Amino acid sequence: MGNIIENEIHHIVSEILDDYNAGRNIDKMDLFNQPSKEEIIDIVDDLLKIVYPGYYRDRSYKVYNIKSNSTVTIEDVAYHLNKQIVLALKYTSQSDDPGALEEQAQRYTVTFLSRIPHVRELLETDLEAAFQGDPAAKYRDEIILSYPGMLAITVNRLAHELFLLNVPLIPRIMTEYAHSITGIDIHPGATIGKYFFIDHGTGVVVGETTVIGDRVKIYQGVTLGALSTRGGQKLRNVRRHPTIEDDVTIYSGASILGGETVVGRNSVIGSNVFITSSIPADTKVSMKDQDLRWGQDE
Amino acid sequence: MGNIIENEIHHIVSEILDDYNAGRNIDKMDLFNQPSKEEIIDIVDDLLKIVYPGYYRDRSYKVYNIKSNSTVTIEDVAYHLNKQIVLALKYTSQSDDPGALEEQAQRYTVTFLSRIPHVRELLETDLEAAFQGDPAAKYRDEIILSYPGMLAITVNRLAHELFLLNVPLIPRIMTEYAHSITGIDIHPGATIGKYFFIDHGTGVVVGETTVIGDRVKIYQGVTLGALSTRGGQKLRNVRRHPTIEDDVTIYSGASILGGETVVGRNSVIGSNVFITSSIPADTKVSMKDQDLRWGQDE
Amino acid sequence: MGNIIENEIHHIVSEILDDYNAGRNIDKMDLFNQPSKEEIIDIVDDLLKIVYPGYYRDRSYKVYNIKSNSTVTIEDVAYHLNKQIVLALKYTSQSDDPGALEEQAQRYTVTFLSRIPHVRELLETDLEAAFQGDPAAKYRDEIILSYPGMLAITVNRLAHELFLLNVPLIPRIMTEYAHSITGIDIHPGATIGKYFFIDHGTGVVVGETTVIGDRVKIYQGVTLGALSTRGGQKLRNVRRHPTIEDDVTIYSGASILGGETVVGRNSVIGSNVFITSSIPADTKVSMKDQDLRWGQDE
Repeated sequence: MGNIIENEIHHIVSEILDDYNAGRNIDKMDLFNQPSKEEIIDIVDDLLKIVYPGYYRDRSYKVYNIKSNSTVTIEDVAYHLNKQIVLALKYTSQSDDPGALEEQAQRYTVTFLSRIPHVRELLETDLEAAFQGDPAAKYRDEIILSYPGMLAITVNRLAHELFLLNVPLIPRIMTEYAHSITGIDIHPGATIGKYFFIDHGTGVVVGETTVIGDRVKIYQGVTLGALSTRGGQKLRNVRRHPTIEDDVTIYSGASILGGETVVGRNSVIGSNVFITSSIPADTKVSMKDQDLRWGQDE
Repeated sequence: MGNIIENEIHHIVSEILDDYNAGRNIDKMDLFNQPSKEEIIDIVDDLLKIVYPGYYRDRSYKVYNIKSNSTVTIEDVAYHLNKQIVLALKYTSQSDDPGALEEQAQRYTVTFLSRIPHVRELLETDLEAAFQGDPAAKYRDEIILSYPGMLAITVNRLAHELFLLNVPLIPRIMTEYAHSITGIDIHPGATIGKYFFIDHGTGVVVGETTVIGDRVKIYQGVTLGALSTRGGQKLRNVRRHPTIEDDVTIYSGASILGGETVVGRNSVIGSNVFITSSIPADTKVSMKDQDLRWGQDE
Repeated sequence: MGNIIENEIHHIVSEILDDYNAGRNIDKMDLFNQPSKEEIIDIVDDLLKIVYPGYYRDRSYKVYNIKSNSTVTIEDVAYHLNKQIVLALKYTSQSDDPGALEEQAQRYTVTFLSRIPHVRELLETDLEAAFQGDPAAKYRDEIILSYPGMLAITVNRLAHELFLLNVPLIPRIMTEYAHSITGIDIHPGATIGKYFFIDHGTGVVVGETTVIGDRVKIYQGVTLGALSTRGGQKLRNVRRHPTIEDDVTIYSGASILGGETVVGRNSVIGSNVFITSSIPADTKVSMKDQDLRWGQDE
């Protein structure tokens, strides 16, 4: 290193190390030995291989080895997920007995894995909804291999199972991983019916207490959100997000807000519409002919 | 592994393996030996090195070796892309003759590669449009190295060449890779003129049958989309997306929808405007002074 | 390789290599020996470990080694960042003396690193704002480990320090890396006060000359942008983006544009509102009851 850096680096290092001792939240070192984001991302990648064994696979994958390959991957996920759940449970556990914690983590791991066939059943319906709903979809394989909505829903349905078990942190880290890849932000707490299709998807936000029925279709930029969150932590555990009944379509950029807002079945919400109270069934809501200003371009 | 997992894991593994035999689409194993998403992403990364040899390069890159380095990269892309095209063509091929398929894939690979100088000619115009159009751009190098719009357009122009050859799956996997990095979702089918500039870009959607003229500039959140896709697969191959003529600017969040909608040359579409019918040339469309509700904040 | 490719590849390679000689911007080879995007991304990843030593860490990390680990990482960043700054300074340097350039780069590296405790102080306030502002946040650790807004702000505050030193290219490459992960596009030039919280965040755009006060909260899809950039490069260095005073909340999809636009303290801007002139303090602006068209769904 050059002279200036050489002369200054020890001083800078000790200033930064001193700064770690300020006792703030960002200074916390290993208080709970937190779950590892990287490990959880690896687990998600392995779960994708388990859920779509013909699509997401190791390059070294041999087709005649499908059973042994999947077996190894499932056992791997069991081992690593259990480790992460142990770390996460320290955030909520009342017990000081590490054996009890370990046992609970193992139960959750086993329960989660046993839900995979149920999740796969739902994902088959989502795949069908995407194929039937998008004229640009030429093949179902294209949807599994490339549609961001399909990836976001897959990770969400998996994370939701861990959320239902009250496992802290891990479900959100999983869905934020999907969010970073897809631009689709679905909280793991959201309850989502069958045949769910998100087209394009960038900018979609689905809040924690949202309830979505069957055969619902939403487009990019749709927010299913809270009316106001200025109450902050006081609103925790309150129902803050809307209910979307069966067979509803919501076009791009529409916002539907509030815990008491219900969009009745079979309704269609137009682009950019802003809804804060309930909509009856079989209703079509769109912007009136907009007040546009026309003129010669200067 | 702990006792509970050890006791249950064999049962869970066999339940999941059984679940693979349900004959659904997500259960498909290697039916066509699908193209590999990872391989296609590697090909895109190599294509970026070929398109911008001075900007995207291996860290081990030696400048006096530019020719031999590029030669190796081009040959590599030829080899791997050909392999992926063979796999993709199985989705559309009528022929049972593997030799014919292989030959067709080679022709497509060669044709695609020979289009790279044409693509680079267009990209030089896009680079210039970004530099001239963005006061925050200090250097053209900054645009190539960091602007998401430039990356999305680059991948799109490459994927479009494969789309024109009717290669299945691969073009969409390429553009969805760019979408995941940039938040910009341009279907490889879109026809795009010279000097195209997308500023910021997150949330942009450009549909499959869109036609865009020269010197068009669009901002984040703009949708060039379909009026309704409730017709689903019945609408396949129908013109569903708008025509944007030369020298049009479309500000953030505007939506322009429908296969018969034409925005005439030199028009300006304001932020959040929602357009479903044609706009004459030289027109400026914006929201009227909004009906806003003002009040003291409670 | 097959016959067709074998026969054609030499011709194609030489066509592409010839195309590199057209003298265009995209043909530039190593003119300045540009900064490396990959190296800068590695530096950002290391900076995250330095800023949050208990959260972003190597998997091999031993807790009793925190001091020696951090020391190595800081020295590593000093070495690599200095190298990148030397390359970047060639874009602006008037001097032909490589020694002077190297010395300046070392000064900037040292100054930047010495600002890390200041940046960490701000980030602790951002973390607190996120926790207090989001009822879905169960733990502060969850925010550091998974909230995209927290990541975007972290990278932005670091990049802003390099921006203030007038280091070319590198700050923007850093923030575009965060943009690609989070969908949040904050220019490194933006001036941002304490306790800044971005919820969800996909589609947020904060322009180069924006000034944001303390305790400001913004949601997904908010644009703090320029009124028009048709002036292109002529507008460089002109104040083009708004001022947001203390304690302002801006809901999803709102756009606030223009260099003379000031949103007064304690105001609330509703979803999708479009603002191009100043708003007094303590004001609540929202869309009037929208003109919606209701009907039975066909």
